[in-house]
Amino acid sequence: MADIEENLINHIARFLEINEHDANEILTYFKVIEIAKKKNLLSEGKICKSNYFVSKGCLRMFFINEKGVEQTIQFALENWWIADYTSFSSQKPADFYIQAVEKSAILALDFLSQDKLLREFPQMERYFRFIHQRAHAASQFRIKNLYELSSEERYHQFTKRYPEFVQRIPQYLLASFLGLTPEYLSEIKSKRIS
Amino acid sequence: MADIEENLINHIARFLEINEHDANEILTYFKVIEIAKKKNLLSEGKICKSNYFVSKGCLRMFFINEKGVEQTIQFALENWWIADYTSFSSQKPADFYIQAVEKSAILALDFLSQDKLLREFPQMERYFRFIHQRAHAASQFRIKNLYELSSEERYHQFTKRYPEFVQRIPQYLLASFLGLTPEYLSEIKSKRIS
Repeated sequence: MADIEENLINHIARFLEINEHDANEILTYFKVIEIAKKKNLLSEGKICKSNYFVSKGCLRMFFINEKGVEQTIQFALENWWIADYTSFSSQKPADFYIQAVEKSAILALDFLSQDKLLREFPQMERYFRFIHQRAHAASQFRIKNLYELSSEERYHQFTKRYPEFVQRIPQYLLASFLGLTPEYLSEIKSKRIS
Repeated sequence: MADIEENLINHIARFLEINEHDANEILTYFKVIEIAKKKNLLSEGKICKSNYFVSKGCLRMFFINEKGVEQTIQFALENWWIADYTSFSSQKPADFYIQAVEKSAILALDFLSQDKLLREFPQMERYFRFIHQRAHAASQFRIKNLYELSSEERYHQFTKRYPEFVQRIPQYLLASFLGLTPEYLSEIKSKRIS
């Protein structure tokens, strides 16, 4: 089993018992995608055909706002799943773009393959239930923050929770995610250091 | 089977096949709660012990912000589930309050009962996977709106999508959800009519 696939199996094994035979069978439903930095896996108006597991690298989801500016709403690092779930569930056009922040290795599970996988291996329902429940919990926390905190407070909270991630991603993307201009982000950072 | 329970079984039956025997067994894991308007099911700092299905009525989730004002982040009408999922999953203190907007009939599934239910009836993993996947999709749309739209635009979008709901809930709660003062909401509404 290659590293790319092994990461997924290890992740599934955190939530349920899985033997080697089933692990190999489950992997046949996935397609490995190696994607270069800044390349898109999904574009607005296209159908989100797959649910993506990040094995290596980092993806982001964004939309283009009225001013024509990319607004990042979500990052997915190693062991995270990402998709436009409205588009994926309905197989209708997406509201979002999904793009590689770094050169990444992805396992893609397309809509029909996911359906087949879940019928063949119903224990995978439990895995995906955990994934979505965790994402649901994270989004409640996220929405609270969007109501409660200023952009500057969000920056401080984010750097405190995810210091390595803040080092890893380009600062203009972090600014976009936090709803700041890159200039204002520099200002906050310089204030902090001084 | 009483109406309160029947609503849940009908909802489960939208996602999976369920026979009468299993339906009755599944219901034994739930507790019926009748709750008066403005009473809390959960308070900040307490553990969110249950996952709540709204059979009749309406609940809302809110937190109290720095200014001491209640900020509503979510409503749950009939057939919706609601919980502080971070607190529920970890059985640690909650960040949120859950309160009845109207006199409501709720089916509560406590943490250990949910665990037992899912082990006894693994097909219910599929049901909860759908519930959380749908909520995950809704939260992506919601977060996009929080970045993209002004409070006034959110009001117009909300009334267009959920006209009956806007009629049904008290206007000060709608204002809180949209991040508006009740006065500003009145102003927007009067502009629209004039």
